[in-house]
Amino acid sequence: MIAPIAITMGCPVGIGPEIIIRLFEDLSLRQEALPVIIGDLGVLRQTVAMLDSQLCPVIWQPGQQCVPGTIPVFVQSNLDVEHLSWGRPSRDTSLAMAKYIRKAVEGIELGAFSAMVTCPISKKALNEAGVLFPGHTEMLAELTGTEHFRMMMAGDQLRVVLVTIHEPLSQISSLLNVDEIVDCIEMTAFSLQRDFAISSPRIALAGINPHAGEQGMFGREEIDIIMPAINKYTGVAQLSGPWPPDTVFLKGRDGAFDAVIAMYHDQGLIPFKMVHFKDGVNVTLGLPIVRTSVDHGTAYDIAGQGKADWTSLAAAWKLAVKISVNRLQVGL
Amino acid sequence: MIAPIAITMGCPVGIGPEIIIRLFEDLSLRQEALPVIIGDLGVLRQTVAMLDSQLCPVIWQPGQQCVPGTIPVFVQSNLDVEHLSWGRPSRDTSLAMAKYIRKAVEGIELGAFSAMVTCPISKKALNEAGVLFPGHTEMLAELTGTEHFRMMMAGDQLRVVLVTIHEPLSQISSLLNVDEIVDCIEMTAFSLQRDFAISSPRIALAGINPHAGEQGMFGREEIDIIMPAINKYTGVAQLSGPWPPDTVFLKGRDGAFDAVIAMYHDQGLIPFKMVHFKDGVNVTLGLPIVRTSVDHGTAYDIAGQGKADWTSLAAAWKLAVKISVNRLQVGL
Repeated sequence: MIAPIAITMGCPVGIGPEIIIRLFEDLSLRQEALPVIIGDLGVLRQTVAMLDSQLCPVIWQPGQQCVPGTIPVFVQSNLDVEHLSWGRPSRDTSLAMAKYIRKAVEGIELGAFSAMVTCPISKKALNEAGVLFPGHTEMLAELTGTEHFRMMMAGDQLRVVLVTIHEPLSQISSLLNVDEIVDCIEMTAFSLQRDFAISSPRIALAGINPHAGEQGMFGREEIDIIMPAINKYTGVAQLSGPWPPDTVFLKGRDGAFDAVIAMYHDQGLIPFKMVHFKDGVNVTLGLPIVRTSVDHGTAYDIAGQGKADWTSLAAAWKLAVKISVNRLQVGL
Repeated sequence: MIAPIAITMGCPVGIGPEIIIRLFEDLSLRQEALPVIIGDLGVLRQTVAMLDSQLCPVIWQPGQQCVPGTIPVFVQSNLDVEHLSWGRPSRDTSLAMAKYIRKAVEGIELGAFSAMVTCPISKKALNEAGVLFPGHTEMLAELTGTEHFRMMMAGDQLRVVLVTIHEPLSQISSLLNVDEIVDCIEMTAFSLQRDFAISSPRIALAGINPHAGEQGMFGREEIDIIMPAINKYTGVAQLSGPWPPDTVFLKGRDGAFDAVIAMYHDQGLIPFKMVHFKDGVNVTLGLPIVRTSVDHGTAYDIAGQGKADWTSLAAAWKLAVKISVNRLQVGL
């Protein structure tokens, strides 16, 4: 069995604690690796009571096994649960949330964990507590000394990797360039080989204009940027494209490709969410550690009500296990 | 019963003739209106033989009834079938294809038909034969003296209307303006009321930037253009938006809206095709006549092989009937 996998609790007053308890109620998950929560014992015990669960969160230390019926918690905060309100983050909850993430990275680097699965944090709360990162992924990049990373959205039916992420639509055309796309192809190909054990991955590139430009009639980026990037790539992946954007994701969903490279946020996320709205997983490519994440936010509006859906966390867990096992076996 | 509905045969050497024969094999469709093909008797007879169908194409004249087991054809060409090859359009086939369209419009204007359903044409072949229109819809606009028209993609689960159509992605931001969007909202609302009999339609507007711009952080079109358009609209439709593009179509599919207005081609067509790849129907809004169309091309590569899927034609037929009936009943 691989080393335990850390699940960071995310914002203590978001839906993280409750989706974690729900996940543990599905015992089958422990057959593949030991899940360890990096979080707060008091908050988890309060959540167990709220959900009327029979599970018991207990203190865990590296190297320990796990007793059936318990939830191992690598305790990194002791928040005053009497004064917490679901959906209302404070400076204390935000600092705790940042600490869970740091501890998970440290643990992986020391070999105590094989991967990390992250529950949602609030970027706003993080920034208000003085932890200044644009987001979760950027924080992980900084902690691991990573310059280049990319976001893959992965599901059983469709995988999408984005060339540009949070950019205005009007800027996409000027932000695209050959080297950036080649880099994205290489990172995608490497992940498909190492993380998904696909030796000769099939990667499709979307165009950006209607009908992929129709020979330049509706735009020239396909001819001037995307095609040259495809030609410049020299690896083993089987590339195709630039494809008309309105059918390439459909083909990907139906099994024609192992991943589709989208040029901008909504081009990739519109189709991905159509297929994997509940069970989508966010995988960060380019990090030296394995990190998967739920595909949703802290959902402060429903936190503490037992309503939150844990499908995405279950999918993120399964994928973290799969990637960890593949990395050992593939040995790239 | 409403007046017969014309089905134009489209390109005689494309898949139009075979999907028409397939459609007629489903007898249930005739219960609602009489379908009349505007096309070529010889081509249809040859197609019947190719498909080994028991149906018999016969000459039809306005006012006639239809005998069971026959396919009524309003003959507008007598092509030399001996010298036709599937997938290879000629000047003769292209001129014939244009004539079917003209005749359908004339027939509707004279009251002989209540609507038209169009099979695919080849724009390239049309232009090579000297019939100079950018496409099918533009030709219909010219024939009916229509200046303003819009494309709606309609299916049982999702309806999408496009503000811009065949424009390069880099131009979208500069092409959007308040009046254009208000016009699109009005045309969509009117169609939902008259054609789909929805008295107070719920219309969602998509943003164009990631997360609908996130308060201007990733782009300002939502604040500067889309929101003012929503505020300017004074009709009865219930508007909402600008919504984050990556979830609004999902909500539309799940029943939250009667239509979603997409700002650009792929924003609307990526999700629409995910849901209605086979049974999507193209409806032209703004024409004085009812026109629905299949959502695919001539498919020259498979024409004449009996492989073509007629699901889109069946859906276009059903929708033409529904709109014709609704227009009579709603009386707007």
